[in-house]
Amino acid sequence: MNRPLKLGIAGLGTVGVGLLQLLAEHGPRLARSVGRDIEVAGVSARSRGKKRAAPLEGIPWFDDAERLAQDASIDVLVELIGGEEGVAKAAVEAALRAGKPVVTANKALLARHGTELAVLAERRGVALNFEAAVAGGIPVIKTLREALAGNQIRRVYGILNGTCNYILTQMQEEHRSFGDVLAEAQAKGYAEADPTFDIDGFDTAHKLSLLTSLAFGTRVAFDEIDVEGIRTITQSDIEAADDLGYRIKLLGVALQTESGIEQRVHPAMVPKHSAIAEISGVTNCVAIDGDFCGNLLLAGAGAGAKATASAVASDILDIARGDNPPPFGVPAAKLEPYRRARLGQHQGAYYVRLSVYDRPGAMANVAGRMGERGVSLESIVQRRPPGARPGIDARPKLGAPTTVILITHETTEEAMRGALDAIHRDGQVDEKPQMIRIEPL
Amino acid sequence: MNRPLKLGIAGLGTVGVGLLQLLAEHGPRLARSVGRDIEVAGVSARSRGKKRAAPLEGIPWFDDAERLAQDASIDVLVELIGGEEGVAKAAVEAALRAGKPVVTANKALLARHGTELAVLAERRGVALNFEAAVAGGIPVIKTLREALAGNQIRRVYGILNGTCNYILTQMQEEHRSFGDVLAEAQAKGYAEADPTFDIDGFDTAHKLSLLTSLAFGTRVAFDEIDVEGIRTITQSDIEAADDLGYRIKLLGVALQTESGIEQRVHPAMVPKHSAIAEISGVTNCVAIDGDFCGNLLLAGAGAGAKATASAVASDILDIARGDNPPPFGVPAAKLEPYRRARLGQHQGAYYVRLSVYDRPGAMANVAGRMGERGVSLESIVQRRPPGARPGIDARPKLGAPTTVILITHETTEEAMRGALDAIHRDGQVDEKPQMIRIEPL
Repeated sequence: MNRPLKLGIAGLGTVGVGLLQLLAEHGPRLARSVGRDIEVAGVSARSRGKKRAAPLEGIPWFDDAERLAQDASIDVLVELIGGEEGVAKAAVEAALRAGKPVVTANKALLARHGTELAVLAERRGVALNFEAAVAGGIPVIKTLREALAGNQIRRVYGILNGTCNYILTQMQEEHRSFGDVLAEAQAKGYAEADPTFDIDGFDTAHKLSLLTSLAFGTRVAFDEIDVEGIRTITQSDIEAADDLGYRIKLLGVALQTESGIEQRVHPAMVPKHSAIAEISGVTNCVAIDGDFCGNLLLAGAGAGAKATASAVASDILDIARGDNPPPFGVPAAKLEPYRRARLGQHQGAYYVRLSVYDRPGAMANVAGRMGERGVSLESIVQRRPPGARPGIDARPKLGAPTTVILITHETTEEAMRGALDAIHRDGQVDEKPQMIRIEPL
Repeated sequence: MNRPLKLGIAGLGTVGVGLLQLLAEHGPRLARSVGRDIEVAGVSARSRGKKRAAPLEGIPWFDDAERLAQDASIDVLVELIGGEEGVAKAAVEAALRAGKPVVTANKALLARHGTELAVLAERRGVALNFEAAVAGGIPVIKTLREALAGNQIRRVYGILNGTCNYILTQMQEEHRSFGDVLAEAQAKGYAEADPTFDIDGFDTAHKLSLLTSLAFGTRVAFDEIDVEGIRTITQSDIEAADDLGYRIKLLGVALQTESGIEQRVHPAMVPKHSAIAEISGVTNCVAIDGDFCGNLLLAGAGAGAKATASAVASDILDIARGDNPPPFGVPAAKLEPYRRARLGQHQGAYYVRLSVYDRPGAMANVAGRMGERGVSLESIVQRRPPGARPGIDARPKLGAPTTVILITHETTEEAMRGALDAIHRDGQVDEKPQMIRIEPL
């Protein structure tokens, strides 16, 4: 048996406590697997007095995470503090500078400083592992970095935020409004009091930026992501999607195109009869299209103390075994500059919901504006108002807005936006048109 | 840059050719990732003269795979010959004895000799990697061995044979008979001329035996698997499943129970609205339930030259990087003996299809036999014969057999089989009852 691997754990929130529980429950199994004991040699957190559901007796306490990182008793820093600057960053840098491997679950830190930290880790010849930073218990980092290393990746995309997927699933299954479900999710603790970070897509974007680098060997480029959240999704979008054979999911998508890489976070339509459409509630998934592996889908728990601890443990065991792959799959010094594709050049089909004034010429105007830009339509659905009985209730007053749903054939984002802007300007619609991209699987 | 890693590739069938193509197309990318070139330093196959879609010029040819394995010019043996004995086994053993790591896609070899080969590899301190042996391009070996190493696994199960899943999907989607779809699959090359190995479940069992060892740290126990294939599945089972909210899939399941491990291959009902139910055609999937990671699902291409080559490449790159985990996650010498659970003790719900003679007392007999053994029923469906119109066509002649579908509540396999045997013996049914396990997700 080799000498034990000594961990310093910085941050004792739910994930830190989950990790301590995992190490306590499965210590002998882990030692057997890697041929050495895994010891917790030091911990650090903001408040020492706080009650925690973890066995902390006898473990040296450090008030300062940076000091913990540098302490001679520590072989590996496990950073579970969070936040893109401040203590977390200082501790991670201190550990790497001291030549110690780092395991972190901190997506914000890596989305902002991932490339520089990987360069630093590589210069010191130590691991920087971050399986827990993306999609919790789903081993997507290891999969992209190691298992699919023989592939040229064309696209990686997924459902990366459990809060959004929970809200969209509830809207779908219980026919409730966005605001209603959000309020309930907040009450249940699935959504934060300030939900912006989740529902406006930034959490998804943090995670996507790391997947992009792993998939394409490019520097982390969080600021280059086009981000839209799910606030604009209405019950009528959910129902229209269902009618047309789709589900709406908040996706993070990174796609290699001829002009560069598209990185985008937005609600998207996916076919109802597909595995990704069945990823419901807080479950996450990641799909990867590679030139040799084909289409791969990974689905599982995207968050939570236990699933995240499972990912952190995997990173620790790799270090215990002496495995030291480059953090982003290729050596950090060789990561290529990120080349952004113009989103206007994005090719795809679109769902459009219009609130059109019900008067002669309105639909002709809509169709004309589309046609001018070469946008052709696959389907048009105009329904009688909800509750109105066929042939019994009078049609709504001439001139009142009525909902029209369009599905286009493949076109460019530029053409699509141009057509919708023109329709809006022409005054034939009651509100800004809703546009949702259809993501091909 | 370190010295190149020199491969000897034994076997130039579709996978071997796929691997050569991958190495030719992505050589520079792989070298950049692992910091050294990957070279093909020798190849071996049965027939030298055969035309192959791979660049073989200049690569030393060996008529004898065992000699290739031992040759001083070779660092790693890549065994793509197949078969549980013979040349493949001799070559793998020769390489390991010579202290050379082995990459193999040979599930049959490992299902029969996996434990001994792992012991041999470990004694020589070299890797024995077999990502390609299970589920093609899906990285389930790495996931179980490394990514989930911090978990106690409770169950691993999946759709591991593309031929069976293709047949069941076609039966479902096109309402065709088993025999019809099988004949078509054979014509298209999706099924072998002798389809026994696939459709009777043995291929699935080979793969399952490896997943079991990885999940539970036990010696490979292929002979301990209860195997049933899909020959008995009829169109009426498919339709009844659909009515009741299920799909029928051929699953391999390994489950830790109190009395030991269940390893079983059989058709199973899974809920229609689940990701696994949407795994259609030749796609494979593996689901893993762990105590920390929760439920994880991996889905993708389970076979084919390219997907399998992707898996082989991943194994090679791990070796190039110097990673050397134990083949089955824990050191081979510490793999525990396999302790088989009694399948009679299997707990679950069941689907039953009976062809009951339509006469007074028949259903009372059926229900009585179930009740005697404590089997309670969740639902009973007896339909008018196909094509008969309600209240118009006369009921079938009294005494003619009519189809009755039962879904039981959870019970034991022993009770279930006892009840069905008794019903059969009582002469109330026209043919052996059909019984399909319902696999909870």
